Amino acid sequence: MTDPRVAGVGLTHFGKHPERTGRAMFAEAGLAALDDAGIDPDDVEALFYGNFMGELAEHQGHQAPLMAEAVGLDAPATRYESACASSGAAIRDAVFRLRSGEADVVLVGGSERMTNIGTAAATDALSIAADDLYEVRAGMTFPGAYALMARAYFEKYGGSKEDLAEIAVKNHEHALPNEYAQMQQAITAEDALDAPTIADPLGLYDSCPITDGATAAVLVSEEYAAENDLDTSVAVTGTGQGGDKMALHDRQYFARTPATEDAADEAYDDAGIGPDAVDFLEVHDCFTIAEVLALEGLGLYEPGEAIGAATRGETTREGELPVNLSGGLKAKGHPVGATGVAQLISLTKLLEGRHPRAEDVEGATTALAHNAGGTVASATVHVLQEVVE
Amino acid sequence: MTDPRVAGVGLTHFGKHPERTGRAMFAEAGLAALDDAGIDPDDVEALFYGNFMGELAEHQGHQAPLMAEAVGLDAPATRYESACASSGAAIRDAVFRLRSGEADVVLVGGSERMTNIGTAAATDALSIAADDLYEVRAGMTFPGAYALMARAYFEKYGGSKEDLAEIAVKNHEHALPNEYAQMQQAITAEDALDAPTIADPLGLYDSCPITDGATAAVLVSEEYAAENDLDTSVAVTGTGQGGDKMALHDRQYFARTPATEDAADEAYDDAGIGPDAVDFLEVHDCFTIAEVLALEGLGLYEPGEAIGAATRGETTREGELPVNLSGGLKAKGHPVGATGVAQLISLTKLLEGRHPRAEDVEGATTALAHNAGGTVASATVHVLQEVVE
Repeated sequence: MTDPRVAGVGLTHFGKHPERTGRAMFAEAGLAALDDAGIDPDDVEALFYGNFMGELAEHQGHQAPLMAEAVGLDAPATRYESACASSGAAIRDAVFRLRSGEADVVLVGGSERMTNIGTAAATDALSIAADDLYEVRAGMTFPGAYALMARAYFEKYGGSKEDLAEIAVKNHEHALPNEYAQMQQAITAEDALDAPTIADPLGLYDSCPITDGATAAVLVSEEYAAENDLDTSVAVTGTGQGGDKMALHDRQYFARTPATEDAADEAYDDAGIGPDAVDFLEVHDCFTIAEVLALEGLGLYEPGEAIGAATRGETTREGELPVNLSGGLKAKGHPVGATGVAQLISLTKLLEGRHPRAEDVEGATTALAHNAGGTVASATVHVLQEVVE
Repeated sequence: MTDPRVAGVGLTHFGKHPERTGRAMFAEAGLAALDDAGIDPDDVEALFYGNFMGELAEHQGHQAPLMAEAVGLDAPATRYESACASSGAAIRDAVFRLRSGEADVVLVGGSERMTNIGTAAATDALSIAADDLYEVRAGMTFPGAYALMARAYFEKYGGSKEDLAEIAVKNHEHALPNEYAQMQQAITAEDALDAPTIADPLGLYDSCPITDGATAAVLVSEEYAAENDLDTSVAVTGTGQGGDKMALHDRQYFARTPATEDAADEAYDDAGIGPDAVDFLEVHDCFTIAEVLALEGLGLYEPGEAIGAATRGETTREGELPVNLSGGLKAKGHPVGATGVAQLISLTKLLEGRHPRAEDVEGATTALAHNAGGTVASATVHVLQEVVE
């Protein structure tokens, strides 16, 4: 068993692009990834594609062959849908395919078009990541669901809106030099605290924006990289996936995310490392509270401890464990089906020293990507490590 | 590399069940498969789940964890969407996972709820398997698309409505003893030819019905089956997947399906057999013409030859190469996301001698499943073989 390499990455600007089709965005991302890898479309053996709401936002299912065509691939293509963890799930199956020797060159990516349908329709479309029968029909939306999780957390472990605001401030600051980010805009804790409440205790700046965008990465087998003398220094050394009950009311915890715990345990074990080895990471901060839950689920903080991590400066770019140097979903944006691969792209560029925040993690060798679906009924974790030939 | 075994199968009745939720149907199928396998839900390591139109028919995305929960699994779950080949795609990744030793026990399945939204809405929902921008908005539906393919076939190779009618007659006859089939109803060629035209040259009996239903199968690694002394005599020995341009107007052929050809080539090669080895098969006959295109794409007939296969009696249950002994999509029904696994279930039961049509293939050892998405922009092929311990 060998570790697949990241041979090339590409993405579109994340933001409001209602005039662009999903296929146009994915073509841009996919061709950029192939160009970055120096690999011909004809050499790609399969496309692993993540998309969440194409049926509702574009009246388009069966997107995978359409996206393969947009990039000029002559290869079979499958769509993976795991809500906001859709392209995390795509990465996972791509990694298995390469590891087992069943393929040597694959494209993995995702795209999502959201702003074209407007905020109300997008919020409704996002809600189908929750349980329609028992949550959505009762009026639950995702800001509401994460607000419940934040309240439960505050009640059990303490913490405050001020702590959440520091997470937003941090992620906005991280995104400042990221030309692909939806929000290259510094905010203060006061901005966050003064912003309108979305679902108490969450305000406008506790929530990620609605985003259009696409991402792609060329993954190759270790053998292919060696034989073709590819310039690849980042390997995917661990993969993990976890699941949980879909509806919050069926869960044992509101303030913990066992799916993340399971995914992390598997990924660490797979990579042969422990949480202590992680130098920096991208986590699924669809809401500020989600970053807290992720850091604890990943075993990087004890339950109740991560709420103050940004406030204490530990997870800022100057801290010991930089989190979401890309800006996270919060500031970089969250084109749902593209997000898992966006995390992989950011980590790869950071490890390769070609990211605007790379100097903050100079010398670091081990990074982690955490992608979550719904209220973390699904989670994937991938470990990326620098390899020295 | 070893060949995964089919340890157990389960399905619901296929038909009109508008009052049943997707999760209720999948729970029935999944629990039946586990019971058939004699495997505890706790032993299942992952769910590979196919669904096509849940967003539109049930306002429910992110179905995989919901379905895992419905069956009582404590395992990560991913949804695969490849239009009508959704659970074919799920089988493929499940096979790779087991073969590589990354898992030993998985559940693969699918469900689809369609009749609850009515025929017009279901037809619209099905249309998103075609290209929304260039086909659907121009008014194309799937009966129309396959009618274009049938016309192109007739023009290039000959053939007639009478030949198509014989395919419908055959598949209806095959379904007669299948208690799970939507249509246990014999028809005559006259019935088919006298039926209303849907899209010329296709009439009502050239089209599969709109169907609710769910399917599931427990697949295990060869090692697990041996170590646990499981009674499994059917192995998945080959897998293949092909892709094509999404829109018909971008294709080189209307009357050929290169995605099927590519999937078949890969699956035969993978299984180490040629088309000659296939004793019987299930093909994706969403329309009668699709059965013709499939048989030619699979290399079982030369182009232009399969149109008369049913008329000549070659593909009937008494012929040399029985096709769609379950009744096919045509008579058994086509709950879209469940269909790929439904084919695997039928073939397994036939090979194991516990299908009402098993006596028609007594002594046969090699079967093939062909699942297609859209106008065959996607196709998967799996080879199932009896193994003797």
